[in-house]
Amino acid sequence: MTDLAAVLAHLEQGHDRILGELVELASIPSVSTDPAHAADVHAAAAWVATKLSAAGPFTVRRIPTPGASIVYAEWLGAPGAPTALIYGHYDVQPADPVELWHSPPFSPTLRKGRLYARGASDDKGPMLIAIKVAEAFFAVQGRLPINVKFLIEGEEETGSPNLEPFVAAHRELLAADVVISADGAMWRIDEPSLTVANRGLAGLELTLRGPGKDLHSGRHGGSVANPLHAMAQLIATLHQQDGRVAVAGFYDRVIELSPAERAEIAALPFDEAVYLGAVGASAAAGEPGYSTLERQWTRPTLELNGMWGGYQGPGQKTVVPSEAHAKITCRLVPDQDPDEIIALVERHLKRHVPVGTQITITHGDHGARPFRLARDNRVLKAAEAALEATYGVVPLIVRMGGTVPVAEIFQRLMGLDTVYFSFSTGDEDFHAPNEFFRVHRLHEGLAAWARLWEHLGQ
Amino acid sequence: MTDLAAVLAHLEQGHDRILGELVELASIPSVSTDPAHAADVHAAAAWVATKLSAAGPFTVRRIPTPGASIVYAEWLGAPGAPTALIYGHYDVQPADPVELWHSPPFSPTLRKGRLYARGASDDKGPMLIAIKVAEAFFAVQGRLPINVKFLIEGEEETGSPNLEPFVAAHRELLAADVVISADGAMWRIDEPSLTVANRGLAGLELTLRGPGKDLHSGRHGGSVANPLHAMAQLIATLHQQDGRVAVAGFYDRVIELSPAERAEIAALPFDEAVYLGAVGASAAAGEPGYSTLERQWTRPTLELNGMWGGYQGPGQKTVVPSEAHAKITCRLVPDQDPDEIIALVERHLKRHVPVGTQITITHGDHGARPFRLARDNRVLKAAEAALEATYGVVPLIVRMGGTVPVAEIFQRLMGLDTVYFSFSTGDEDFHAPNEFFRVHRLHEGLAAWARLWEHLGQ
Repeated sequence: MTDLAAVLAHLEQGHDRILGELVELASIPSVSTDPAHAADVHAAAAWVATKLSAAGPFTVRRIPTPGASIVYAEWLGAPGAPTALIYGHYDVQPADPVELWHSPPFSPTLRKGRLYARGASDDKGPMLIAIKVAEAFFAVQGRLPINVKFLIEGEEETGSPNLEPFVAAHRELLAADVVISADGAMWRIDEPSLTVANRGLAGLELTLRGPGKDLHSGRHGGSVANPLHAMAQLIATLHQQDGRVAVAGFYDRVIELSPAERAEIAALPFDEAVYLGAVGASAAAGEPGYSTLERQWTRPTLELNGMWGGYQGPGQKTVVPSEAHAKITCRLVPDQDPDEIIALVERHLKRHVPVGTQITITHGDHGARPFRLARDNRVLKAAEAALEATYGVVPLIVRMGGTVPVAEIFQRLMGLDTVYFSFSTGDEDFHAPNEFFRVHRLHEGLAAWARLWEHLGQ
Repeated sequence: MTDLAAVLAHLEQGHDRILGELVELASIPSVSTDPAHAADVHAAAAWVATKLSAAGPFTVRRIPTPGASIVYAEWLGAPGAPTALIYGHYDVQPADPVELWHSPPFSPTLRKGRLYARGASDDKGPMLIAIKVAEAFFAVQGRLPINVKFLIEGEEETGSPNLEPFVAAHRELLAADVVISADGAMWRIDEPSLTVANRGLAGLELTLRGPGKDLHSGRHGGSVANPLHAMAQLIATLHQQDGRVAVAGFYDRVIELSPAERAEIAALPFDEAVYLGAVGASAAAGEPGYSTLERQWTRPTLELNGMWGGYQGPGQKTVVPSEAHAKITCRLVPDQDPDEIIALVERHLKRHVPVGTQITITHGDHGARPFRLARDNRVLKAAEAALEATYGVVPLIVRMGGTVPVAEIFQRLMGLDTVYFSFSTGDEDFHAPNEFFRVHRLHEGLAAWARLWEHLGQ
């Protein structure tokens, strides 16, 4: 029996025990957004720290932040082997509306191969997998194939407000070759997949001011600029009729997909009619010349997220409002830079301000750079091999349209790539009632993580 | 001494007594919008009815409505003479913020020739003038020069919700040749003026729907239609670059001003820079080829009064909203028809709906037709003569940009023109703290109303 085979066998023998541990952890209502659950959040951190200490000779610390503690553990006993920073979180979404749950959200319940519990899928189950794989390696061979640093936070569901300052203050402690995230989710249950890119983000808000105060549209209408008309005119300049973004320079740095990449996306199982039906859209829309998946994953956008001004209540109020507002975010793809895109959009807006109104632009938080793993990334290759060995099929290579704050933080502050290696699935209702985690995914995840580490250590 | 001179002399001798009566009436806090003042509203109605009974041989009724009573009084003893329906109201605006008043709002106080009190200018003073003129005619000559019907309501400050059903149900009772309104206000204190036109109104609200629910702009952005983009594009089609309304047929029925009318408006004292400074606008705007007063008074408009969709709170929320909304009103000039304009705008909107969104249009209340007094209107001529005799100058002929609900109701339900003959002035803070009524306006109004009735009776 090879060392890996022994580890896999050990994990398999431990399936029931590990599921029992997940039941234990998922019984702790560690709802980070609710101050009433502060003690539970604390208890979950303690539980994770205890499990890491029990897993093997880790140096384990619970590091306080202004919010929930970060559980940190490291084992650096594999000189010459790469170092992986394992990311996960022990906090969970609120369970509301509790009355829609078929079993109590914090009384984990097995039904038809699924463990129903708040947090079982996001992220307690997937996070526990990594700890249990470490435990198995230590139990069987007394060491891990790679150097490992665990960073398990307790504020992911509230936007990780203390993660960025923590990372900024602990770059040396966290130094690694790659981030492997136990958080995230596979695309669909039918096809194992790996995410190799996500879009970046850049946002701004604009205000157009017309008259100095709201005016009566009977007395004044038609003789002074109406900021709502101006806003409509200005926003309409941002896109061409065909759907392309009309901001000069917007596409300059966009790296076009290679024919191979386009073929890869085109080969993915995707039923556009089913998708449009699911989101209730009458037709696909967007930049011409690209498929829906290409538009969502590989093309930049400029989207209005909000626009408002004047009277919004019932009935009529005949006002020429003093101000109109809009919120804009752009999704970015390699090699667009958030600051540069904001500057281009701002220049466009200022150049097109309609006569009679004044523009004010405010910037949101720092933007997020788009992220793409090189296809020959060693960790990605190892993850592909681990999934193929576990599932017997070559995993799909997919991308994400959204922006992942955690990955963005590691990228921006430490220059680290993040490989998502979660065994949660997108359909597991993790922000809704009746969240569940598939028990077979727990088993598959244990095997796949063991294989991934083994590959990386070779 | 002619009969009129005797009436004028009688009124002049009564100045102090009449001012005392106004102080009495203005002491009643008849705030119609505040249920706590229901008894005061009732008391004001009783006061008005009592004064009408005391003024002469009127048939006086207090007619209940679902809200405040309407005080009705008639004297029809002038066969062959015209019948005037005199409109006014006994209710007042709230006094808030009370702390900004220099004297208590319902303790009428004389300072420098002004009577400070809530309602003194709007409309208790101007309304009392008409009653006191009737009293003087009866006292001096036992009769009025014309037939008179008083309609004094108590809900004007809450939008006259019961006036329209009342008028519709009492067309015969109210039958008259003209409405003379004691409500309204002269343009400016320096120049006596008569208002000969106001704009009509037509409104609609539209909703554009894109996806069936709010979508995450990361996952879905760029692949489905964003209703906010669509709204901006659609609204931008409503006006040409030069400011003209771009709806086909919108101007078809507009009667252009005659050169004489344009000259009349151009001759009015109006300082555009002062006006723009007062409203805080950086520049005049609107339909090319017209002055600011022409735009406000004589040109139709299409104005957005509200537009909204998506996220409006602080910070970013990366949503592609499901819906976007807009409220539109048009100001109409002769001979535009509200229903026809709504149909034209609706057709334009439906023709220009951007791909991927669906439009829903809802109509507001019935529209209001634009109103213009014929310049040879006999009552207008009499009013001009009365003002000239009172002030020694030819009154200015002005228009209003807004829509007057009361005049619109009489026009629509009874086909009656309304001549505004109020001695309130636009600067008397009637919807603000420290409302006042100029005592000399009270005196001038008494004389002018006596002359107006005398002219009409000839």
